[in-house]
Amino acid sequence: MDIEALTRGVLDREARAVARAISLVEDGRPELAALSAGIYGHTGAAATIGLTGAPGVGKSTLATALVRAARADGRRVAVLAIDPTSPYTGGALLGDRVRMQEHATDPDVFIRSMATRGHLGGMALAAPEAVRILEAAGFDLVIVETVGVGQAEVDVAAATDTAVVVLAPGLGDAVQMAKAGILEVADVFIVNKSDRDGAAAVVRELRQMLHLGPARPWDPPVLSTTATTDEGIGELWSTIEEHGRWAVASGGRDAKRRDRLLREVESLGAERLRLDLTRALDADADLVERLVSRAVDPYGAAEELVRGVRDEGSA
Amino acid sequence: MDIEALTRGVLDREARAVARAISLVEDGRPELAALSAGIYGHTGAAATIGLTGAPGVGKSTLATALVRAARADGRRVAVLAIDPTSPYTGGALLGDRVRMQEHATDPDVFIRSMATRGHLGGMALAAPEAVRILEAAGFDLVIVETVGVGQAEVDVAAATDTAVVVLAPGLGDAVQMAKAGILEVADVFIVNKSDRDGAAAVVRELRQMLHLGPARPWDPPVLSTTATTDEGIGELWSTIEEHGRWAVASGGRDAKRRDRLLREVESLGAERLRLDLTRALDADADLVERLVSRAVDPYGAAEELVRGVRDEGSA
Repeated sequence: MDIEALTRGVLDREARAVARAISLVEDGRPELAALSAGIYGHTGAAATIGLTGAPGVGKSTLATALVRAARADGRRVAVLAIDPTSPYTGGALLGDRVRMQEHATDPDVFIRSMATRGHLGGMALAAPEAVRILEAAGFDLVIVETVGVGQAEVDVAAATDTAVVVLAPGLGDAVQMAKAGILEVADVFIVNKSDRDGAAAVVRELRQMLHLGPARPWDPPVLSTTATTDEGIGELWSTIEEHGRWAVASGGRDAKRRDRLLREVESLGAERLRLDLTRALDADADLVERLVSRAVDPYGAAEELVRGVRDEGSA
Repeated sequence: MDIEALTRGVLDREARAVARAISLVEDGRPELAALSAGIYGHTGAAATIGLTGAPGVGKSTLATALVRAARADGRRVAVLAIDPTSPYTGGALLGDRVRMQEHATDPDVFIRSMATRGHLGGMALAAPEAVRILEAAGFDLVIVETVGVGQAEVDVAAATDTAVVVLAPGLGDAVQMAKAGILEVADVFIVNKSDRDGAAAVVRELRQMLHLGPARPWDPPVLSTTATTDEGIGELWSTIEEHGRWAVASGGRDAKRRDRLLREVESLGAERLRLDLTRALDADADLVERLVSRAVDPYGAAEELVRGVRDEGSA
């Protein structure tokens, strides 16, 4: 693969090159290192929005509505839907096509699902690299949508500039959402499907719960939307913009970006060393045998492996 | 802390010692290595059941009903609820107390929530160590309940002997569950709250989706339950037992256990090395500066760090 040409294609904003580059991230290909080096100088200018919530709350419809609002403001927008794809269903490609229709002829909109099973570091490492590709391709707004409300999904949303958490009536209550650690990471809450029974109760419950926590420099607002009819989208968009301006002015955005960059580099390094460990364990039939027969416990075995990998450096 | 005494307490089946040992896992304490070495020879006899599903499907009620069924068969049962606890809510301790009431006077039942934020490896590394503590304390059945339906939660459920996936009418459809990669890991599906509208449709949709996939040696059954009235719990319990017997006879259980043990050792090693990387990055102001100013990209910086950690081995 010609990585130089691919890098040029991304920087020249060619949709095909961007799509191929994100496929490299999906598959966790070794060529990523060269691509990353080529594009990194062209990143950092885009604002990122995280969109997280349980299946069925309407995240995709919200993302489409946000794209429309951002386009009306003249932004170039990319949507990255992080999708731990099932080999059964063939992933969200169908969903992509449906969603693409509205923006199919607009060169300033890019919508893409990304599976992460091929990437050793999972979505936590795949997402930031894909976002950088989109930034290098000149998108000034990147919406990162996650499927599911688990720990990893919340962490990915928390790594964006503005984390938007979506709830809907009847889809698990706010207490249960809170358990996933969502209250602390959200900058904006949305109760979508606000035309349904129980929406007002969800808003009330959420506000009460937020008041139980310590005061924070940014008080996360709770908004109501009905994405299917565009109800509340204007207010949502201006709230996201307001949060973005506040985060830049307070210095919070840059501090958060720096911190997540350092953690990412550590994780990339840990994945590299993990490959060394896998190789070392595969080659050590004796250690595997002692582990399976319970002659050595997992911590002890890990210690032996780590010593071996460190010693390789001196060989 | 006297780890020898704690280890003896766990092996002597003292509830207080078991609770303290699991707290060590929660906090990711360094004493874990010694505890692990002391108990590992006493593990491997328990069957493990994973219970995963979106917030609100009734996992906790199902777990309690399963405990009742297992106790009727004379089993010693532990429930481990993996809970990425929010500092706002104080975690699931309240839920524990409510659930404990039914089994509070039964020394052969142990119910415990476990937060995993202190553990560097997250729930993927905390869960198996906590399960081994429960095995060493003589529980012959361990139910691992996860909150959320993200990638990490599905991985934890997949690491049990029998992965049970719970759905309920109105809580996101089966297609959306499938996206989280759940279809491939489930050994048994439950549609809970089967007295509600739409339950039959969820069962039908799920069965259709399972038929789209390739035939598998164990065809995962789809059962209906109403955990609050014990409806369907008997059949669920006998299906879980049947799957357990099948997995032992086919050799699949032991192959899966061996595989997850090797992956766990690699992950433990990777976490150890990650600490080295964090230390190295903290000490290298020049590298941080080049990273933040975009003179070096994340992959390049990780490569430099890894070289530094490997070289330490030779120092």
